[in-house]
Amino acid sequence: MTFSEIGRFFEEHDCYTILTHKSPDGDTLGAGFGLCGYLRDMGKRANVKNGDGFPDRYSFMYEGYEPQEFEEQCVIAVDIADPRLIGSELIEYQQEGRIDLCIDHHISNKFYAKQSYVDGGSSAACLILYQLFKELGRPISDRIALCLYTGIATDTGCFKYENTIPEAHIAAAELMQYDFPFAVINRLMFDIRSKGRMAAEHFVEDNMEFLANDKCAMIALTFETMEQCGIEQAEFEGIASIPLTMEGVQLGITIRQRHEDVFKLSVRTTEALDASAFCRQFGGGGHIRAAGCEIKGTLDEVRRKVIAAVEELSL
Amino acid sequence: MTFSEIGRFFEEHDCYTILTHKSPDGDTLGAGFGLCGYLRDMGKRANVKNGDGFPDRYSFMYEGYEPQEFEEQCVIAVDIADPRLIGSELIEYQQEGRIDLCIDHHISNKFYAKQSYVDGGSSAACLILYQLFKELGRPISDRIALCLYTGIATDTGCFKYENTIPEAHIAAAELMQYDFPFAVINRLMFDIRSKGRMAAEHFVEDNMEFLANDKCAMIALTFETMEQCGIEQAEFEGIASIPLTMEGVQLGITIRQRHEDVFKLSVRTTEALDASAFCRQFGGGGHIRAAGCEIKGTLDEVRRKVIAAVEELSL
Repeated sequence: MTFSEIGRFFEEHDCYTILTHKSPDGDTLGAGFGLCGYLRDMGKRANVKNGDGFPDRYSFMYEGYEPQEFEEQCVIAVDIADPRLIGSELIEYQQEGRIDLCIDHHISNKFYAKQSYVDGGSSAACLILYQLFKELGRPISDRIALCLYTGIATDTGCFKYENTIPEAHIAAAELMQYDFPFAVINRLMFDIRSKGRMAAEHFVEDNMEFLANDKCAMIALTFETMEQCGIEQAEFEGIASIPLTMEGVQLGITIRQRHEDVFKLSVRTTEALDASAFCRQFGGGGHIRAAGCEIKGTLDEVRRKVIAAVEELSL
Repeated sequence: MTFSEIGRFFEEHDCYTILTHKSPDGDTLGAGFGLCGYLRDMGKRANVKNGDGFPDRYSFMYEGYEPQEFEEQCVIAVDIADPRLIGSELIEYQQEGRIDLCIDHHISNKFYAKQSYVDGGSSAACLILYQLFKELGRPISDRIALCLYTGIATDTGCFKYENTIPEAHIAAAELMQYDFPFAVINRLMFDIRSKGRMAAEHFVEDNMEFLANDKCAMIALTFETMEQCGIEQAEFEGIASIPLTMEGVQLGITIRQRHEDVFKLSVRTTEALDASAFCRQFGGGGHIRAAGCEIKGTLDEVRRKVIAAVEELSL
């Protein structure tokens, strides 16, 4: 699809549900609320849905947002590479043929929607939307600008990561001219920690395991250890980026218990390794520097599988 | 001075010493080595000097750099707001009339040089240089691009802070097109920690003091505490940004011992407060969100002065 075809798609449909991925991040929510605002400004009816709900820390994006009453006619998925990422709470949308349009920047996108716009080279779904809105020409509100900026900033680690393309900086330069406090948002997204969060970081860092001559750092969190340390579970969100902050580490692995015998792996790599390839062997996927998968078993079994896979890399 | 006047200045002089500020950071070194490379590419002789030497962590900027032999004819200061920041090791340059040209982005610049180009609204000295080089039209090397990108990125916290102007993003978008690994540099500048550094962070964070209903967080480090914790002193560099990462904190203060009875204050503020104004009452200065000063006395005396100043703010 071209941008003008997407523009026509927006014109021709109405009563949109916009789906965002489970464990929502700044990019999926920025794209969801950015697109919702855009469609509503066009006079369309549109709602945003997330199987896990909308986290408080992103409330600046959806402040004042009210779901509208209507009979859904069209479903758009944003920043969702695979229908499984819609989450079990919205399982009805995982059936084949339920998604009309997918706008995404994951190279691993499964092309599950009836129509897709996927740019695997783009920094963020919000960057695609920004470029789309710019080409379509309709003015955007400050709130939409804030949503898109936040998605681009969060998915690039504030323009720090390799996935930052020049267009991401150009979009930021243009979006900053709208009225929203980008530095306050960045502080909120990247810097601010509660005392509980600081404790969680210390706990995780003190228990980090180093493998492969310190080239791999691994965190493992079970329900039990999280309970024992007396820190709220929510404080452990996003810790997957911690292992890669250690000097010399090329592969950062975070293992977190999801169910009694299911563990979620979050893998982060430097330019030396392909995180997506690492996760594919366990049926997962994602980006080249950030990917994930789920592994069944006890923590010991999962750890052994992961360590074996790390050893095979011969770092 | 206009950019074209600076261009003429570069043409008309030769045998340059480029001064960078003590406790060098990415911006002063990026500007120093970026300008040095530019002048040498013009066929001029030029050296960079720093009273404290060039730290290893910035070696990617000066790899292969060799000082040239010549009799100095012209002195340029980059990113130096006040001649005192040249440092005591280069005290001869602090005499009046010794600096021919100053290029700086500090609003507190003292206009101590014979000629000055000061843009207090610019994100970085390196951003000024980038815009200057672009206007002058001479092509720049990949190394110069790397130096300028690094300065802009480090002084803006990787485009995160309020001092990030749209032009900083535009410059980044253009500089990224040169051949240098910006993501590797960002990881090195912002993310990577040694195990010793991690220990230093934990030590500092565990001993942080909260004042004014948790709106101010304060770190105090003496030679003694640094020795007792068994962590290398160098690992404590840059910790001044830590207090402001705590939720609700608007004023972050880091007190570090410099000499037996001299303490250096590094003050960081959110949009609620003026760091430069806070430091001015102790004879210091800097930017609106990041400033510094020195206070004489024992730690107890210094702490009492600082706490009194915090209380006066009625946060």
